[in-house]
Amino acid sequence: MLPDLTALLTAIQPADADAMGRARARQAQLTKPAGALGDLEDLSVRLAGVLGSERPDPRGVAVIVAAGDHGVARAGVSAYPPEVTPAMVANFLADTPAGPGGAAVNALARAVGARVYVMDAGVNADLPDHPALVRAALRRGTHDLSVQAAMSVEEARALILAGAALARRAIEDGADVLIPGEMGIGNTTPAAVITARLLGLDAARVTGRGTGVDDARLAHKVAVIRAALERTPTIDPLEVLAEFGGFEIAAMLGVMLQAAASRRAVILDGFVEGSAALIGVTLTPHLRDYLFPAGECAEIGHAAQLAHLGLKPMFHLNLRLGEGTGGVLAAPILLGAAATLREMRTFAEAGVPGA
Amino acid sequence: MLPDLTALLTAIQPADADAMGRARARQAQLTKPAGALGDLEDLSVRLAGVLGSERPDPRGVAVIVAAGDHGVARAGVSAYPPEVTPAMVANFLADTPAGPGGAAVNALARAVGARVYVMDAGVNADLPDHPALVRAALRRGTHDLSVQAAMSVEEARALILAGAALARRAIEDGADVLIPGEMGIGNTTPAAVITARLLGLDAARVTGRGTGVDDARLAHKVAVIRAALERTPTIDPLEVLAEFGGFEIAAMLGVMLQAAASRRAVILDGFVEGSAALIGVTLTPHLRDYLFPAGECAEIGHAAQLAHLGLKPMFHLNLRLGEGTGGVLAAPILLGAAATLREMRTFAEAGVPGA
Repeated sequence: MLPDLTALLTAIQPADADAMGRARARQAQLTKPAGALGDLEDLSVRLAGVLGSERPDPRGVAVIVAAGDHGVARAGVSAYPPEVTPAMVANFLADTPAGPGGAAVNALARAVGARVYVMDAGVNADLPDHPALVRAALRRGTHDLSVQAAMSVEEARALILAGAALARRAIEDGADVLIPGEMGIGNTTPAAVITARLLGLDAARVTGRGTGVDDARLAHKVAVIRAALERTPTIDPLEVLAEFGGFEIAAMLGVMLQAAASRRAVILDGFVEGSAALIGVTLTPHLRDYLFPAGECAEIGHAAQLAHLGLKPMFHLNLRLGEGTGGVLAAPILLGAAATLREMRTFAEAGVPGA
Repeated sequence: MLPDLTALLTAIQPADADAMGRARARQAQLTKPAGALGDLEDLSVRLAGVLGSERPDPRGVAVIVAAGDHGVARAGVSAYPPEVTPAMVANFLADTPAGPGGAAVNALARAVGARVYVMDAGVNADLPDHPALVRAALRRGTHDLSVQAAMSVEEARALILAGAALARRAIEDGADVLIPGEMGIGNTTPAAVITARLLGLDAARVTGRGTGVDDARLAHKVAVIRAALERTPTIDPLEVLAEFGGFEIAAMLGVMLQAAASRRAVILDGFVEGSAALIGVTLTPHLRDYLFPAGECAEIGHAAQLAHLGLKPMFHLNLRLGEGTGGVLAAPILLGAAATLREMRTFAEAGVPGA
């Protein structure tokens, strides 16, 4: 039984302030100089609020990679052809000598012990059946957002709920930390349009090189994004998603909303994930309590998203790949933060003299 | 049979340039846009050079925490009393519900699957026997470096070799990534003196608050560091270590040198570790090839160390705890970088269209 979107949004409550207070007090008693764990202390306290315990003990980590194609990709906004989207889905699922999946997210997930879920949110291809492929496609890609709505509001809502359903499955499988990731040639264009509209920024401020377009194509990409923004003045978050979004962006939003409703942590990867988060915090500001940005990615516009969210990233490794790769790399830092709060002894327990 | 220091230094050769070339070429063929893994690609290529393979497959991670006391701590340079050093050694070794060790480094090491080794490099206490405590102390702490040499050159050499011996044991136990860490109340003072002398900087440029001294004590700490620098003009690296160092700093240097001689990677944690690395690259510049800085720590002077080494840290989490904690947090990033090179498929292997 799928909850409807209203019920999902209503279920998202603020993080547990009491647990955060106890966690903050506990951090001050642990065997280290006050504040010496720096940003790790804030991460641990926020995670305590999410999981409702001053000794947070997150179980598994899941990365949910949603893939979708984009009508706007035919407008020449990417360095890669749209055929890369289904080819990369096949790569996420491939048998390799190292295990399932030959993409960066698979290699990183194996390195940190995260489980990978792959969703067809609307890829423009006949994807072969695979036991690990979750099918949620309504259509083979969005319409061209520079000339018409990318999808209907009903389609956006359906993909949000599909993402939420897969998040529930990952949680049932043992995940307490969820990482939405994406694959979709052309999808920094919808992400830029959404970011420009929701933050009130000019297209040039949020349009980057994506997978690596040259100067001429970058100028064209800015023009395409301007055309989309001029098409409709809507600021309603679901309409913004439908007009300018992608099916995988809607699915990632659903993952985030369900994680927050279920009081699980979301590690927020790059610019495309950030556009889904902007829609999410516009729908319900409490979502912010559940978001943990991984790294600041190389795509311009990401910094503006993080500033709006008021959240500090964990690293700056100049990643610009997507797939949730940055989120996976950040997972051990978040789990480490939890471990300090959960497993370190206090000065009193250890008999260590204080300052 | 312990090798002598000259043999250890001679064994340190540059990283494998051929393997780095093959790794760089392989990164360009993997299923991602060129450069999209950002700094992770450089990390993976450098690690390929260390391990001599374009598909680096590091086995275990070991953190070696060396503890020592400091005569200068009696000069009032720390916010904590020297009794904290042996109390924290006991904390590193304590039985806790979560496993061995109740300190931050123990909690983080469990979270990332690293093994912890603890060395008494010269703690001012009768430490009880413990199967996991490696005894290498020659004396119960150094002399006060502000008025006399902290140790003799012979003592410095002996502790370097003790660190190297423990590194060999960790490598025999399965470590391909070594993290030197430290505990020693007062030890940001010797680290600052070493850094000031080897980089030719004024004491105020390298003197931070350590565990958290106030303004008055910080001014006193700068004066103590100036007095030490004025005591002798030596720039010979072993003499600098003996005059201004700490036993745990010498031991960490030994860990680094042995790791490099054995072609293993060293994750370089904070400011005190950095002072050992500065002595190391002065002894043999090839050591640099084996160093991977974790994060830029909150202690001023660390940035100057990293600039001198010409190496970029992986994160900025404002850590200032020591114990190797930052190094442990960085280990999954380095292992993840290796995993991309080792386990990702190429465009040709995956049949993914290129740009």
